[in-house]
Amino acid sequence: MNEERVSQMALGTLVEPGSRELGVLVRSVGAQEALARVIGGFGISAQLAGAVQARLRSAGVLDAADPGAQVAEQMAEQAERSGARIVTAADTEWPQALDELVRASREGNVLRRDTDPPMCVWLRGPLRLDEALERSVSVVGARAITGYGGYVASEFAFGLAERGWTVVSGGALGVDVTAHRGALVAGGPTVAVLPCGIERAYPAANAAVLEQIGADGLLLTEWAPGTMPHKTRFLTRNRVIAAATRGTVVIEAGSRSGARNTLGYARLLQRAAMVVPGPINSAMSVGCHLELRQPGTVLVTRVEEIIEEVGAVGELADPIQGAGRPEDVLDPLQARILDAVRPRRAMAAEQIAATAGVSGRDARRALPLLEELGFVVSGVDGYRLRREPRGPVDEEDR
Amino acid sequence: MNEERVSQMALGTLVEPGSRELGVLVRSVGAQEALARVIGGFGISAQLAGAVQARLRSAGVLDAADPGAQVAEQMAEQAERSGARIVTAADTEWPQALDELVRASREGNVLRRDTDPPMCVWLRGPLRLDEALERSVSVVGARAITGYGGYVASEFAFGLAERGWTVVSGGALGVDVTAHRGALVAGGPTVAVLPCGIERAYPAANAAVLEQIGADGLLLTEWAPGTMPHKTRFLTRNRVIAAATRGTVVIEAGSRSGARNTLGYARLLQRAAMVVPGPINSAMSVGCHLELRQPGTVLVTRVEEIIEEVGAVGELADPIQGAGRPEDVLDPLQARILDAVRPRRAMAAEQIAATAGVSGRDARRALPLLEELGFVVSGVDGYRLRREPRGPVDEEDR
Repeated sequence: MNEERVSQMALGTLVEPGSRELGVLVRSVGAQEALARVIGGFGISAQLAGAVQARLRSAGVLDAADPGAQVAEQMAEQAERSGARIVTAADTEWPQALDELVRASREGNVLRRDTDPPMCVWLRGPLRLDEALERSVSVVGARAITGYGGYVASEFAFGLAERGWTVVSGGALGVDVTAHRGALVAGGPTVAVLPCGIERAYPAANAAVLEQIGADGLLLTEWAPGTMPHKTRFLTRNRVIAAATRGTVVIEAGSRSGARNTLGYARLLQRAAMVVPGPINSAMSVGCHLELRQPGTVLVTRVEEIIEEVGAVGELADPIQGAGRPEDVLDPLQARILDAVRPRRAMAAEQIAATAGVSGRDARRALPLLEELGFVVSGVDGYRLRREPRGPVDEEDR
Repeated sequence: MNEERVSQMALGTLVEPGSRELGVLVRSVGAQEALARVIGGFGISAQLAGAVQARLRSAGVLDAADPGAQVAEQMAEQAERSGARIVTAADTEWPQALDELVRASREGNVLRRDTDPPMCVWLRGPLRLDEALERSVSVVGARAITGYGGYVASEFAFGLAERGWTVVSGGALGVDVTAHRGALVAGGPTVAVLPCGIERAYPAANAAVLEQIGADGLLLTEWAPGTMPHKTRFLTRNRVIAAATRGTVVIEAGSRSGARNTLGYARLLQRAAMVVPGPINSAMSVGCHLELRQPGTVLVTRVEEIIEEVGAVGELADPIQGAGRPEDVLDPLQARILDAVRPRRAMAAEQIAATAGVSGRDARRALPLLEELGFVVSGVDGYRLRREPRGPVDEEDR
């Protein structure tokens, strides 16, 4: 086995993912030398050394001749048992987008300290990871969604999958599972990034969907089989969701939602940070609106608007337009004259001119044209509107 | 009577409001000379000259010795008959904010050509116009509102009035009248800017509210009694709503809503342009979301956020915060160790360290402190969580 790859695998299990200290070390001396140092406990902090010792002891390899190789061997066995494969930066399948997490660490402590790229990931599913993530969007949000949030998550995921985009989410209740399901229904690829061991059907209620994702899409995690989901692991996992995709869409989110954390990473990594608004009296949209009040966040209401943010140049959403109206063909002066014509009472051109605030000459010139266009009819008493208008007082018209 | 004032009045009736040609002329030669020119038809466009002739004829003063004075006299009589007063730029009550409309004209034709300040306004009500508008916000939106839009318009107007802000709107059905009512209920001042003569109870369904505004607040219009509301007049009127106030809030708006036009003027005049979001599947929020996708528009969800935009420096909204949690007192290392402690199964400090990915020393140091703080309890087998946690897997926690 490739030594670099083995070292990356072992480091992925011996050190809790995201460690900046480890990331800096690996980038400076390589994974093999880094592994030797963290096992030997030299040139690293006492905190990291102690943590690695605890893991080595727990794995029962503390006194082995080559503890790193043994850990990697255990991992390979675990992978085989759980129908998974392990991918590291040494593999061609590794998505370079994940390495951009170095940037999240480097740009100050605005989110968390330990945001380094994963050392390795565990995968289950038929897709190649780099290909699955090539055109991908994360769709995330609250677990306790409303009917509205469920509707939007389902519509967006279906629409994205239908247009060839991979839907990435966290496999959780609420927005996550609804998005995964929407993509599966459209027959599109979907990736669930888990906060725990790949063999865990977590949460249990989503077991069937997770099973299907493992069969048709990809299950992905940084943690070895047996690892429990913990609060801090959710936050660590979120950085992968943001980094792996071209943009993150938050559907519904309470004020303390973890989805806001994912969006923060997206913004930090210069991915598109997109948010769906909702009613201001819905607790499940409070977090969305807080994010939309931040600079750099884009409000999205349609799949086309999402693709406009994450797609190639020129993948622009069609503008929303009202139906065209006959009046749209008139110039401002003609429109003003038409405005002054009454539906029932016929008026002379002079009267219409005075009402509209235009000259008699302009009115006498415009009215025959308006008649020709079918807007007005003339009689002995003057002009009146041809049809009952939608209302001369329709303020909705622009 | 002051000659300048009389001329401003006559020009306000002889020329349809907003005329840029007239505005430029008045600013260059004064209202008196401008009146002489528009009546005499010299030094002005044939279009303007013809329009004024039509109005003079309609007023029956075409052959009078001093048509301008006669028009002003007629206006004074009309005002008296309709319980109104006329205010021009020559009066101390004139709000200087309206004169900033010159800027809307000057900055290109992005909205409409004829956006000049009014020559005069007709008022009915007990308030001084300048004082009423000193701290004011316009609240506008669709006529065909949903229950959601009605709720928000009412809450916002009530809240603004309660905090001493004048609510300005257009007296129309839907958001407008709901906002006026909200302000009246709070006992606060409200101003209705009408698109027609001041004596008209337009729309008829709002007659009682308009009556009450005329008694307790202010009815305001640029048009003489007898003037009908027309489509182009709604748009002309909207510039006054935007200019008169420190900011405009759009509550609900279809894609072609006139409220978007008002918001455009607010933006152009560098007033606060504020929009309330809604469900993306509501047609009455489509216009709101289109505006929120424009730069320079602020999403607002609370009265405090509106006041933050339009109020003095330091009138900041309190941040929305989740309830404080005991865990908030822990540092990241302690939080990570606590995460690894199980509710039912007691674990040794070493085991907890391996799970959390920290050193045994860190775990042994932190666990007694976590016990002292009441998070964990210790026994012969090690540590377990003291209370049933909200869930170690609560993704909503940040």
